[in-house]
Amino acid sequence: MQLYDELLERLKDIDLISQLGSLLGWDQEVLMPPEAASSRAEQLAWISKERHTRKTDPRMGEILEELEGMDGLDDIAEANVRLARDAYDKATRLPTDFVSEIAKHNSKSLISWTEAREKNDFSIFRDDLAKSIDYARRKADYLGYEDLRYDALLDIYESGLTVSRLDPLFKGLREEVAPLIKSVAERGERPDMSWISNNSWDEEGQEKLSQKVSEAIGFNFQAGRRDASTHPFCGGPNPDDVRWTTRYSESDPFGSLYGSMHETGHGTYEQGRPRDLDFQPAGNANGLGIHESQSRLWENQIGRSLEFCEWVLPLWKEQFPENMEDVDAVQLWKAVNVVEPSLIRVDADEATYNIHIMIRYEIEKLLISGDLEVDDLPDKWDDMYEEYLGVRPTDRSTGVLQDIHWSMGAIGYFPTYTLGNLYSAQLLLAAREDLPEHDSNIRNGEFAPLLGWMRERVHRRGSIMEPADLIIEATGTPPSPEAFVDYLRNKVERLYGI
Amino acid sequence: MQLYDELLERLKDIDLISQLGSLLGWDQEVLMPPEAASSRAEQLAWISKERHTRKTDPRMGEILEELEGMDGLDDIAEANVRLARDAYDKATRLPTDFVSEIAKHNSKSLISWTEAREKNDFSIFRDDLAKSIDYARRKADYLGYEDLRYDALLDIYESGLTVSRLDPLFKGLREEVAPLIKSVAERGERPDMSWISNNSWDEEGQEKLSQKVSEAIGFNFQAGRRDASTHPFCGGPNPDDVRWTTRYSESDPFGSLYGSMHETGHGTYEQGRPRDLDFQPAGNANGLGIHESQSRLWENQIGRSLEFCEWVLPLWKEQFPENMEDVDAVQLWKAVNVVEPSLIRVDADEATYNIHIMIRYEIEKLLISGDLEVDDLPDKWDDMYEEYLGVRPTDRSTGVLQDIHWSMGAIGYFPTYTLGNLYSAQLLLAAREDLPEHDSNIRNGEFAPLLGWMRERVHRRGSIMEPADLIIEATGTPPSPEAFVDYLRNKVERLYGI
Repeated sequence: MQLYDELLERLKDIDLISQLGSLLGWDQEVLMPPEAASSRAEQLAWISKERHTRKTDPRMGEILEELEGMDGLDDIAEANVRLARDAYDKATRLPTDFVSEIAKHNSKSLISWTEAREKNDFSIFRDDLAKSIDYARRKADYLGYEDLRYDALLDIYESGLTVSRLDPLFKGLREEVAPLIKSVAERGERPDMSWISNNSWDEEGQEKLSQKVSEAIGFNFQAGRRDASTHPFCGGPNPDDVRWTTRYSESDPFGSLYGSMHETGHGTYEQGRPRDLDFQPAGNANGLGIHESQSRLWENQIGRSLEFCEWVLPLWKEQFPENMEDVDAVQLWKAVNVVEPSLIRVDADEATYNIHIMIRYEIEKLLISGDLEVDDLPDKWDDMYEEYLGVRPTDRSTGVLQDIHWSMGAIGYFPTYTLGNLYSAQLLLAAREDLPEHDSNIRNGEFAPLLGWMRERVHRRGSIMEPADLIIEATGTPPSPEAFVDYLRNKVERLYGI
Repeated sequence: MQLYDELLERLKDIDLISQLGSLLGWDQEVLMPPEAASSRAEQLAWISKERHTRKTDPRMGEILEELEGMDGLDDIAEANVRLARDAYDKATRLPTDFVSEIAKHNSKSLISWTEAREKNDFSIFRDDLAKSIDYARRKADYLGYEDLRYDALLDIYESGLTVSRLDPLFKGLREEVAPLIKSVAERGERPDMSWISNNSWDEEGQEKLSQKVSEAIGFNFQAGRRDASTHPFCGGPNPDDVRWTTRYSESDPFGSLYGSMHETGHGTYEQGRPRDLDFQPAGNANGLGIHESQSRLWENQIGRSLEFCEWVLPLWKEQFPENMEDVDAVQLWKAVNVVEPSLIRVDADEATYNIHIMIRYEIEKLLISGDLEVDDLPDKWDDMYEEYLGVRPTDRSTGVLQDIHWSMGAIGYFPTYTLGNLYSAQLLLAAREDLPEHDSNIRNGEFAPLLGWMRERVHRRGSIMEPADLIIEATGTPPSPEAFVDYLRNKVERLYGI
């Protein structure tokens, strides 16, 4: 298997370059001195160039062709060949000039979006967005697709994802969740939140709380770090060195804790990757949807459960004895589970969140197919918010201009957020069957059984299978909205008696 | 000049790889999670391999040969060709197998040295050291030399340095400084240090003091950082991103401040490099001796002057009002200038420091020439300490095993420390001629004139000339011990009335 060894050696080279890129990216967000920005851009451009050269090396194409014609490859080897082929095709099908043209456009577009959002004026961003949509279409044409152009874009972020797979998921969500939200809104109940807003929450206490919860979940701080950054993320070069960040606000203590649990979910996934497959694509985390399932699991399914609130309450009281003096677990649980339609995706609760995503998904489909003109986009956005969430933006900044994604050319990305939510519910449902003591485990702060289950069924499986097949293997059912809808319905019932 | 442009492009590639290596090195020392050690080693090995491949590319040899035969290159181009040739020769003359053999040996040797030092038993390190000396000799033979093998080793750390240049410097030091130290020792006076040892010095106060002094000197924290690490150093990828570290001890507040001033000196040198020569060897800092001159300048020549102590005293009092209540500038000045022969190099004062180096230099010469056997080394070491410093180690850990350098194969490195001390005195002497207000500037905390002088005469000159020529250009005199000896004599006179 000399040829396969050569493939692995080349893939290792590419992986090491990516590791350097991850470290540079982390450093840039967390602690790089401000004047280093342009020299960092130069270093990152060098990394991109080196990686691209290796990914598109004609020898890589020859090796893959030969290996694809061979019998007797095992599962792992099959996966590595499949994933290397996918990366090779994606890298070689896009002309180099086209890629650098897009990169330049995106830099420009990010600036016009920032200005448009600041000035609350869509027209500033309009032309760049129109161009981005055109680029996305051309990109889809270069990459190829069977059914719809938009499928080619979805596949960039979640391998094998198509509109024909996604439509039923969003349909199920829309039909079941929208009425649920409406019924909550109609009741007009809101838990007492004055104990949060009337107090100040010092950063040190939030840091300690974040740290303790992340440790309890099972994040290994000997092989990772916690830091602060403006935009929380999980990065770092490899499973020995996983670095996540959170941010602190003295008026809102939930952002840092739930952000930490979210990134801890991503981080434990990275730390749980199969180490015998280091430097191999088959050993990587499996796409954005599965990754988001791990973050959402700990942030929402676990973090916003009553059992977790019961366990974590003493930790809150330890850090904030005065603020928390009269707060009990049920109050805490209600405060972190307010269901309330709102305009901003990143502030949305777990019930309404997927409706925000659904709206973006439907709009992206229309934009790529040409059934929606850019000039009609802002009003269409507002109409859909009114239709599905019952709230209407009063300006563009809290409407169509709120998200950074389109300014970066990331069209087809949003749906992976919802996939993560659906997968997390399916995975927890399956895990519960194997872990009958689950609820009392959480109540006792025993997170190892659940993390162990995820390690075995998800983390250790790397990217050996396509994401949808991994969900089938781990849960026995294909991707579906049912588990999530049941979970939500049950929660709303317990919270509001609906 | 298509050929020269190709050279620059190749040199830029090499420089960018080195930048990544610097960042990885900084991260490793400052904040990397412990379990990442072996994966970091793999990343660094990749960096080394990529850099080596580019440095030894046969095309590089062709380009250099052609350019060396050309007329009409300007100073900068001449320097780039000369420095690229030096790097090419050094990289290609050592066989790849030999280099990796040494790397492996050094890893092993570092372990045996660590154990030997811990157990205070030279015999544990003996064989590995003997092998390192043998490797050093073979390395010298591969690299080539005119006069002495040891010259080839010196040249690795300071281009153009030879025994015939160094011997007179050390002779001057030995003859002048040794009697000075003796006369101080005979007086047996020691300033009152109880105000230091009787107090505790909190880390936060030391941090603030370090930061304020470094800012006052002119280190740009928008293009750099201060952090803590076990072994203080100055690193970072490029002049936009210079990162230095210090360490804190609650029982000794001087280590952090003087360490900070030392690294600030290195850091301002890096920040002052000629930016029109980015990515070019001619734009790099000029060897270890000149680099050390900048650190020693701020740490010793400025930092241990009475004028500086007068300026900095209020800052000390601001951070440590109780500890410093009864301390005046003269007391502070005396406390940071205790001249006292001791066994440990890194703890030595500025008068005795160079005697420590001279002993190592003389011993290295003897070891490489074969005039001293490894088995006779420990006693030889102790004898020389007794002869030149009047103190005799009572064990090996505080004797021959104290320094890490030989365990890393760094033979020929020590003399650059003394060069730094001599250069710093020469540079300050020359700067004083242009800056008649120097002493009062320092007393007023106006460091910009001196930093400006160094920027113009040293920093902005990059590596356009050989280090010794840079000293001649900047000071009007070749490297010499006189300025340093005069400075020391003057200081001892003021301190002790000798």
